[in-house]
Amino acid sequence: MVTRRQQLALVGFLQAQNCTTIPAAWRHPEARLDFTTADYYRHIGRTLERGCFDIGFFDDRLAMPDMYGHDHTHTVENGIRCVKLDPTAVLMAMGMATSHVGLGATYSTTYHQPFHVARVFSTLDHLTGGRAAWNVVTSVNDNEARNMGLDHGLAHDARYDQADEFMAVVHGHWDTWDDDALVMDRDAGLFARGDRVHRLDHQGEHYRSRGPFTVPRTPQGHPVVIQAGQSARGSRFAARWGELIFVSNLQLASARASYQALRTQAAELGRDPDSMRVATLVFPVVGRTRAEAEDRKAAFDALTKDIDELSLLSEGLNFDFSTKGLDDTFTAEELASLSGIQAIRDRVIERSGGAEPTVRDFMRITSRASLNHAVVGDPSDIADHLEEWFTTPACDGFVIGSSHQPAALEHFVDLVVPELQRRGLVRERYTGTTLRDHLGLAVPRPGAWTSA
Amino acid sequence: MVTRRQQLALVGFLQAQNCTTIPAAWRHPEARLDFTTADYYRHIGRTLERGCFDIGFFDDRLAMPDMYGHDHTHTVENGIRCVKLDPTAVLMAMGMATSHVGLGATYSTTYHQPFHVARVFSTLDHLTGGRAAWNVVTSVNDNEARNMGLDHGLAHDARYDQADEFMAVVHGHWDTWDDDALVMDRDAGLFARGDRVHRLDHQGEHYRSRGPFTVPRTPQGHPVVIQAGQSARGSRFAARWGELIFVSNLQLASARASYQALRTQAAELGRDPDSMRVATLVFPVVGRTRAEAEDRKAAFDALTKDIDELSLLSEGLNFDFSTKGLDDTFTAEELASLSGIQAIRDRVIERSGGAEPTVRDFMRITSRASLNHAVVGDPSDIADHLEEWFTTPACDGFVIGSSHQPAALEHFVDLVVPELQRRGLVRERYTGTTLRDHLGLAVPRPGAWTSA
Repeated sequence: MVTRRQQLALVGFLQAQNCTTIPAAWRHPEARLDFTTADYYRHIGRTLERGCFDIGFFDDRLAMPDMYGHDHTHTVENGIRCVKLDPTAVLMAMGMATSHVGLGATYSTTYHQPFHVARVFSTLDHLTGGRAAWNVVTSVNDNEARNMGLDHGLAHDARYDQADEFMAVVHGHWDTWDDDALVMDRDAGLFARGDRVHRLDHQGEHYRSRGPFTVPRTPQGHPVVIQAGQSARGSRFAARWGELIFVSNLQLASARASYQALRTQAAELGRDPDSMRVATLVFPVVGRTRAEAEDRKAAFDALTKDIDELSLLSEGLNFDFSTKGLDDTFTAEELASLSGIQAIRDRVIERSGGAEPTVRDFMRITSRASLNHAVVGDPSDIADHLEEWFTTPACDGFVIGSSHQPAALEHFVDLVVPELQRRGLVRERYTGTTLRDHLGLAVPRPGAWTSA
Repeated sequence: MVTRRQQLALVGFLQAQNCTTIPAAWRHPEARLDFTTADYYRHIGRTLERGCFDIGFFDDRLAMPDMYGHDHTHTVENGIRCVKLDPTAVLMAMGMATSHVGLGATYSTTYHQPFHVARVFSTLDHLTGGRAAWNVVTSVNDNEARNMGLDHGLAHDARYDQADEFMAVVHGHWDTWDDDALVMDRDAGLFARGDRVHRLDHQGEHYRSRGPFTVPRTPQGHPVVIQAGQSARGSRFAARWGELIFVSNLQLASARASYQALRTQAAELGRDPDSMRVATLVFPVVGRTRAEAEDRKAAFDALTKDIDELSLLSEGLNFDFSTKGLDDTFTAEELASLSGIQAIRDRVIERSGGAEPTVRDFMRITSRASLNHAVVGDPSDIADHLEEWFTTPACDGFVIGSSHQPAALEHFVDLVVPELQRRGLVRERYTGTTLRDHLGLAVPRPGAWTSA
């Protein structure tokens, strides 16, 4: 506990869409349905800031779910993540209404040029005064590929090989303006030092980009890099590039083990494990009493549908679940052929304990469209859970998911955050101004990432 | 004059960079140098809104100028457009601080997938309550190509052929949600009508994109499309797709002719010429008196350098002007080989009247780095100029360029706008809320663009 931070990181898990990750969200009477307006995102940003969150970040997907039955009618009718706005525009709406909370957006390495991504996130870091983060993802599924000019997504490991080079180019551009490049001396007519702005001249297997980059070094040196890879290959990618690592673990023992494994892996890659923060996903359902919390969960459960779960499974695993009955099984061969988020598949295999899993097993074990894995209780129950995971340690903080927005987030901020503050686990007020300040991450020196 | 609007359109020409289009801008003592902060852009947005502008829009370039001498040292040292932030993030900073003024950003068709561009601008239109516009450009020069994975930009006409298909895909996606698709009926559990959201299924020569699009139809139907092509091929592109057309003409007679030609061309393509607004670039230098205006221009002139002009010429024409002395001439063959902005080249050829132009001719005739073509005078002089061009008619409005920001824009708003309002040529206050309201452009029905 010597070098670890005494306070846990709070990360808001946000969606620029018609629901949270849970499709039933929009059906809840407390959910706001003005998700295409700036005001909706401003309100969420202010709520996070009121709760002293380190950051809120938006996930992304470049397609509407329609792997299930290869048709989008069910998606649209049931409101299964069928709306997806551009996450950086939404980030700016939130950022311009707040002054401290960090702001992250997801951008895929698969369908953009690294110069573009580097410039977008440098700009966001400047405009927000050093509060920006980029959640790096590799694009998974075929329907994203089909919107973006290809027939299929890249194979899993190839995606990460390409992404490694992508990250090297982005960091390379971020590092091409030295900290002391800008002079802006009107009398001398010298805008910036010519020898402190460098070309990148990258020529790699997947990318070429010359530079010089057109954005001076940002308030944070560069934006914080968020990463969520949890497969073997994805985890190596996260250990190499991630500063805020987003993981999902349901069991404390396995969370503790993978937390240590990630830190070891980072150390093996020559990084200080304390140069990253690992935050684990949790869906708190809180009430002033346990009974109120149970009632809240029950009311939400009544809004979920099987189709929600089947549609998300099809999407996440790049496989059409409508081709099987609920009690049909997957053979080992079929399991091996699933090309989507491998962490989902691996969890199902692990939990099935050798037996061939059925569709129902997939639905039950992953439960991406319900609150089956939520932590339910009064403020003290929730705080106990978070404290135990944090002190074990199984993580450095939590990605707080919401059943529906903004109400579930407000419940957390109003009921749980004060309890965490009483325990000294969450700040009473912001003491710094940048996201790196909040997370206790140092401003990187130029070249720190690409020389590793 | 029956169908023409009685009031002229005011369009702010903005740059998310360290200077205006004129490199000397940053050297002016009145220029703000906090061009990486949100506050700088907020101030500009509020100034536009105070002046009842229809819209301000940001240009873009995906590289720092370094065609001149194939080196960026001079660019950085002299501050020649060496900083270039992402224009959509900057648009949002301006948009979140204003409530009425329209907001445009440039995005290239050359280096992005149409699905991405369609989604970004739909999102901006939603978040700004119907104030967004997309300035469509095709990317010109080799140093942009080299940042984005290629060695050279596409040939001129090929760029536009590809851009035509790009526009069809973007409009196609914008049209895939019918106006009445969203239901959001919680009791019925119906989010949107499945049969009112369509796939695009585009399979073309350059692009494939399937859909369905993930953004419901926006407050303006779709964002306003700005276009600035002025070559023969570029003008055909503008007449087909543009709603707000940005032109540059120094002589009233030629402006009048090209205005009529553009309207005729639109009509020939089956469009109502009144479904577009043509705005011409002007750099006003205004003072309370003519003497003050002259002094302002003289003070600015003292800040310009030859290297500014040579660097911008090299960039615009994709040719290294350091390979020639100032009095060297261009042969007809050399002129024909210039692959950049052909409107620049054509103007020089026209003005040279048959003689082989020298480098000095290029500098003098184009004058992109000085106020040589500015309109200089007191508020009445400037208003006279604008009124004459508007009533001739040679345009529907003006793109107001600034020598330096925000001061030159403030001078225009404080001195010229009141005079234009007295003459009934500019609104006294906004009467609508969307950019289409301001410009008097109808909300398009789905399919209006792609069926043309």
